[in-house]
Amino acid sequence: MQRMAGKEPIKVGILGATGTVGQRFITLLSVHPWFTIHALGASSRSAGKVYAAAANWKQITYMPNAVKDMIVHECKPEPFAECAIVFSGLDSDVAGEIESAFRAADLAVFSNAKNYRRDPHVPLIVPLVNPEHLSIIGQQQALHSPPLKKGFIVTNANCSTTAHVIALAALEKAFGPLETLMITTLQAISGAGYPGVPSLDIIDNVVPYISGEEEKIEWETRKILGGMEEMEGQTVSGRPLQQFDMHAQTPLKISAACNRVPVTTGHMINVSLKFSRRPPPSPQQVCEALKAYRSDAQLQGCPSAPLQTITVHDAPDRPQPRMDRAHQDGAGINVGRVRQCPVLDIKFVVLADNVSIGAATSSIINAEYAVLQGVVSS
Amino acid sequence: MQRMAGKEPIKVGILGATGTVGQRFITLLSVHPWFTIHALGASSRSAGKVYAAAANWKQITYMPNAVKDMIVHECKPEPFAECAIVFSGLDSDVAGEIESAFRAADLAVFSNAKNYRRDPHVPLIVPLVNPEHLSIIGQQQALHSPPLKKGFIVTNANCSTTAHVIALAALEKAFGPLETLMITTLQAISGAGYPGVPSLDIIDNVVPYISGEEEKIEWETRKILGGMEEMEGQTVSGRPLQQFDMHAQTPLKISAACNRVPVTTGHMINVSLKFSRRPPPSPQQVCEALKAYRSDAQLQGCPSAPLQTITVHDAPDRPQPRMDRAHQDGAGINVGRVRQCPVLDIKFVVLADNVSIGAATSSIINAEYAVLQGVVSS
Amino acid sequence: MQRMAGKEPIKVGILGATGTVGQRFITLLSVHPWFTIHALGASSRSAGKVYAAAANWKQITYMPNAVKDMIVHECKPEPFAECAIVFSGLDSDVAGEIESAFRAADLAVFSNAKNYRRDPHVPLIVPLVNPEHLSIIGQQQALHSPPLKKGFIVTNANCSTTAHVIALAALEKAFGPLETLMITTLQAISGAGYPGVPSLDIIDNVVPYISGEEEKIEWETRKILGGMEEMEGQTVSGRPLQQFDMHAQTPLKISAACNRVPVTTGHMINVSLKFSRRPPPSPQQVCEALKAYRSDAQLQGCPSAPLQTITVHDAPDRPQPRMDRAHQDGAGINVGRVRQCPVLDIKFVVLADNVSIGAATSSIINAEYAVLQGVVSS
Amino acid sequence: MQRMAGKEPIKVGILGATGTVGQRFITLLSVHPWFTIHALGASSRSAGKVYAAAANWKQITYMPNAVKDMIVHECKPEPFAECAIVFSGLDSDVAGEIESAFRAADLAVFSNAKNYRRDPHVPLIVPLVNPEHLSIIGQQQALHSPPLKKGFIVTNANCSTTAHVIALAALEKAFGPLETLMITTLQAISGAGYPGVPSLDIIDNVVPYISGEEEKIEWETRKILGGMEEMEGQTVSGRPLQQFDMHAQTPLKISAACNRVPVTTGHMINVSLKFSRRPPPSPQQVCEALKAYRSDAQLQGCPSAPLQTITVHDAPDRPQPRMDRAHQDGAGINVGRVRQCPVLDIKFVVLADNVSIGAATSSIINAEYAVLQGVVSS
Repeated sequence: MQRMAGKEPIKVGILGATGTVGQRFITLLSVHPWFTIHALGASSRSAGKVYAAAANWKQITYMPNAVKDMIVHECKPEPFAECAIVFSGLDSDVAGEIESAFRAADLAVFSNAKNYRRDPHVPLIVPLVNPEHLSIIGQQQALHSPPLKKGFIVTNANCSTTAHVIALAALEKAFGPLETLMITTLQAISGAGYPGVPSLDIIDNVVPYISGEEEKIEWETRKILGGMEEMEGQTVSGRPLQQFDMHAQTPLKISAACNRVPVTTGHMINVSLKFSRRPPPSPQQVCEALKAYRSDAQLQGCPSAPLQTITVHDAPDRPQPRMDRAHQDGAGINVGRVRQCPVLDIKFVVLADNVSIGAATSSIINAEYAVLQGVVSS
Repeated sequence: MQRMAGKEPIKVGILGATGTVGQRFITLLSVHPWFTIHALGASSRSAGKVYAAAANWKQITYMPNAVKDMIVHECKPEPFAECAIVFSGLDSDVAGEIESAFRAADLAVFSNAKNYRRDPHVPLIVPLVNPEHLSIIGQQQALHSPPLKKGFIVTNANCSTTAHVIALAALEKAFGPLETLMITTLQAISGAGYPGVPSLDIIDNVVPYISGEEEKIEWETRKILGGMEEMEGQTVSGRPLQQFDMHAQTPLKISAACNRVPVTTGHMINVSLKFSRRPPPSPQQVCEALKAYRSDAQLQGCPSAPLQTITVHDAPDRPQPRMDRAHQDGAGINVGRVRQCPVLDIKFVVLADNVSIGAATSSIINAEYAVLQGVVSS
Repeated sequence: MQRMAGKEPIKVGILGATGTVGQRFITLLSVHPWFTIHALGASSRSAGKVYAAAANWKQITYMPNAVKDMIVHECKPEPFAECAIVFSGLDSDVAGEIESAFRAADLAVFSNAKNYRRDPHVPLIVPLVNPEHLSIIGQQQALHSPPLKKGFIVTNANCSTTAHVIALAALEKAFGPLETLMITTLQAISGAGYPGVPSLDIIDNVVPYISGEEEKIEWETRKILGGMEEMEGQTVSGRPLQQFDMHAQTPLKISAACNRVPVTTGHMINVSLKFSRRPPPSPQQVCEALKAYRSDAQLQGCPSAPLQTITVHDAPDRPQPRMDRAHQDGAGINVGRVRQCPVLDIKFVVLADNVSIGAATSSIINAEYAVLQGVVSS
Repeated sequence: MQRMAGKEPIKVGILGATGTVGQRFITLLSVHPWFTIHALGASSRSAGKVYAAAANWKQITYMPNAVKDMIVHECKPEPFAECAIVFSGLDSDVAGEIESAFRAADLAVFSNAKNYRRDPHVPLIVPLVNPEHLSIIGQQQALHSPPLKKGFIVTNANCSTTAHVIALAALEKAFGPLETLMITTLQAISGAGYPGVPSLDIIDNVVPYISGEEEKIEWETRKILGGMEEMEGQTVSGRPLQQFDMHAQTPLKISAACNRVPVTTGHMINVSLKFSRRPPPSPQQVCEALKAYRSDAQLQGCPSAPLQTITVHDAPDRPQPRMDRAHQDGAGINVGRVRQCPVLDIKFVVLADNVSIGAATSSIINAEYAVLQGVVSS
């Protein structure tokens, strides 16, 4: 990855900087070719301390020297005023108010929190799938009171939604709309943050339940894979209002079942699906479409987008979390066992690094894409 | 459990006695109210040794004193001649020939091996579901050359098939035939025997593949849940030939996806299903039917049948392998999270102890039922 | 275990009833031959609720019906007034005040908490080792202001101290005092309570540190293995004051190193030791002494004392937590690999169930012993 | 790491190339600045196949393209004739004969196998400790029949010996000879190779025994930390015969206890030790000496030697296998919890990556050092 020729580094801030997602943001941004970490925010308990004293560092790579001595701020807009981009790894119990305040202060927020994912004017973007949903930002700014020039909120998806939706996007692009989706997840403990899952609950065990997760997968998938449509007769600033169509042209039935398993990182997902198109593509055609898929984020030159969006495995027992999660620093996804489904059309497994493409990496590619589109003024 | 009043203990033998399933047979049979262990068989490497020297004991309960000094025999019929019942925990690579030889020697074999499960004259019995399939034994004996008086082979099902098929049987009994079944398994390592799964393959990992397992589940489920029908115009000993109908009257579409997870014991299964009947039963009705289900094995008085065939959990995060597998010594199954499926009708999770009702306990209840039916001459 | 002939059940209370140790107390006491659960205490958050609603039950055996509908009280003496014995599974941050208040209300408290272990008038008793230390109770009552008739506090030891100290007691009984002790522990996660150790900290990992644990082991071992001596010229109620001699006659050097490992239950301890006696006993003699050891608690008839205090394993790779922790319901300890130490005299490994003999079971046997000694008025 | 200016790549071969250690050799050597993989050897089962077909690849990084199509040979010297260096990752049951044959064919063998570690003319080298023991090679060649020009065998140590011996070397360098050593290991499953430890033996478990390991640690430590001395009156080729003194000048008492824990990679070792010198150094002095230690391999310019030989951790709960094993690609070691030992002088924990510095990386640095010394003719 190269610095953009002749460009100054773009200043970015990180909210929730001491948490699990915040630490991942720091790890990735400390070596980012475009961005430079300018401000860190956390709870009042951490504010005023240097980062090395405030954070209980839980990453496998060591804490970057660049942040060790940075003073952690409270999550208020002022210290972030110079940041062209603010990444949010906040917990959902505080993300709502804080992100709203940052947007109102005309700051561009790229959030990993769930709070605004269902807002009709906030795009929910998996950067390897639907970065074009960024186009809703103008409307979000125009409808804000008072209207905003630079501030907005962009969200990325739940870690388990992200994993399978990339594969589905590749298939819809090649073969047209999906009609039915059955998903069973085997999710890693890091998806629950830190301290997260107590060890007594998960060693030698499986927990067949993750609160709210199934509903999130079913809802988010439709917003991400769906398009946008004009709302008849409704305008803002003279332009027609847009809304997300939630995959309305081909209603998409989705059933998700979520399980927590004793794996540190890497969500494994069993997918079965049915296409609208009859006859459906063969497993061989599906493999080829998955391998050939290139995200627009990659084509446009986002430096954090993976070279190979979807790695398709031939070995019958791959992908596996421990063996495949670190490939491409977790920025792409892995698919394997593509075969016919006796009930629907096709089944396969997906593996994605839930802390990388499933969280911080998605936010970062979203921001890169926004820079390339000129949505962020750097 | 009580000895049968006024009855002598019934002598039983165990083939594959040093293996994982054999050890479980020994554990259970050493305290059985009806049966007494009379002969042990294993490979020629173990033959001639006392059991304590031959077996690498891997059970959590200690080796029963009664078997420690028993001499292990080769798996040949002679030393088992006095056994009214022979349980087989043999590996499939040797079970075919040995079980056949035992049957030919007029011995009653209850096998956990897969070799004869698809034989059209051998019943595949999950004792809490279809013990009535024992009725094929007469035909199996009559068609043998030369015809047999007492010898036969009865098989029980694969450990993951057993788990869900008990729940399905309860539902078909209450609401009529199923039409569609989607199954995703999270299977314990003990299902692979010993040494089985290398630890490097499964710690902090999931393996989304178990060789042959999906096909077994799809096939065995139909044989077990299906009925029997007369083959027109074909008779043996003057009685019409019977065949398994493989659930033919309502064709049952089944799609299974199998995963190995780092859990010692307890297969967890995510099930979604569709009934023929419209409208389908509600989740509440499904729960009631599962709770109310009583197996014929229990009603007839099989001492190893669980008091509660299906334990339905109300807590949203149960059952779990480590918490629920030992309930009723693993002889029943656990169901939880019964809810509507947005794609099919109903979804839920099943947990079963794969080494108990999923293996040895099933064989033993099958034998108990056969005793009660007079099929075994004790 | 039999009810004591012609005796009424003895009413007992449980403090910290909703916690990990409290749940274990309930599990054990609900089937106890002498004791009946009469009152449950927990934090004000739980008080007023029925137990089934207040507790997040985490035991592998199901919640006993007898407690499901019991109302949970705050931890104040009044509702426990009829209890002849009060077991405390309280956290150390509240145990100090509450246990003191219960004692002041003339209640007999058997505590698993660490708060009073170092009190010079409170006995620290591992019931299979030093129940004779109960004799300090008279002095504890006499020195209380105002003096007590029935109230007192008895503590049991840290879960890792308990494990090895039982083996050491057997060896000191047979061969005289020890002089040097090197201990390295591999401790289970259940030792840290619930939620306890975050799974992200321990899956595929070892944590070579448990706060305060090494110092506790080094200190507690001396108090438990030591004797009592009269304090010259000091009396209470006309009798000479006693003090614990902390193994003073043969100063005992102890070095402990503590590690947390990804095991649910069962502390494994590597011990090396040196006797005062020259020449030291051989490994063979050590094995025999360990096997022969009978605790006074057992000899006096405590129903929860294990039949075999120390199970000595011959297999070179035993004991192991998963295989041996459940033996005798975890009431005894396991020793293996007894061999010469090239630096000290003898080395071996000890395994103990940290939630049974390492916690609740010890408190219960202590109470049983106190009943047999007439210290508790039932 | 840079290619040596103006030098051709040095051709190397790998024996046991399909095994665990062999795969690690391939991973490291495929990106080595000096060496190029020229020939691969494995069992006759693999011979004749391309490597991609022969190997069951179990590394987390993907198989290097450079070896995928290389034909695997039997382990006979001919196809390795052009290799200046042959690395051996052979199992000990075949390493003895094969390595001997390669040496006899005048090939330089750097072996990870245990077979020749105790040979009085073969150096046992932990490259960050005693590379000067390479000087025995001349004698090894001279005593061979017929005498050798280029062939020899160099071994590296057991994976658990390697870990602690590096820390001990640093301490002996700073403070003079050690006198007593107590070691308790918590060893990762990858130390047992593949398939290695069955998962049923280690999930939720600890195995307090590794066959032969304790004796190996006790013996190897003395050979590595010891010096060399002339054997009075014995010469070869006119020069006095050398022998390893096994730390004879200050006899070193060592007691090791070995445990297997459910960790994929990273041996954790609890060390207590006593110096000859009175008074002994303080924990603070020990920390400083560990941090300051530079290996001769690093000073001489071995490209695979770590920049920081020993990383000393300040956090009380570090190092930990999952958090620290990957630091410097596992080429250095980690030390933490340096503190006083109440029995000996000092205690601390060591963590080392058993598959890197504990195995293949050691062999490779040994070879690099030999190249720099001119012992290998490249």
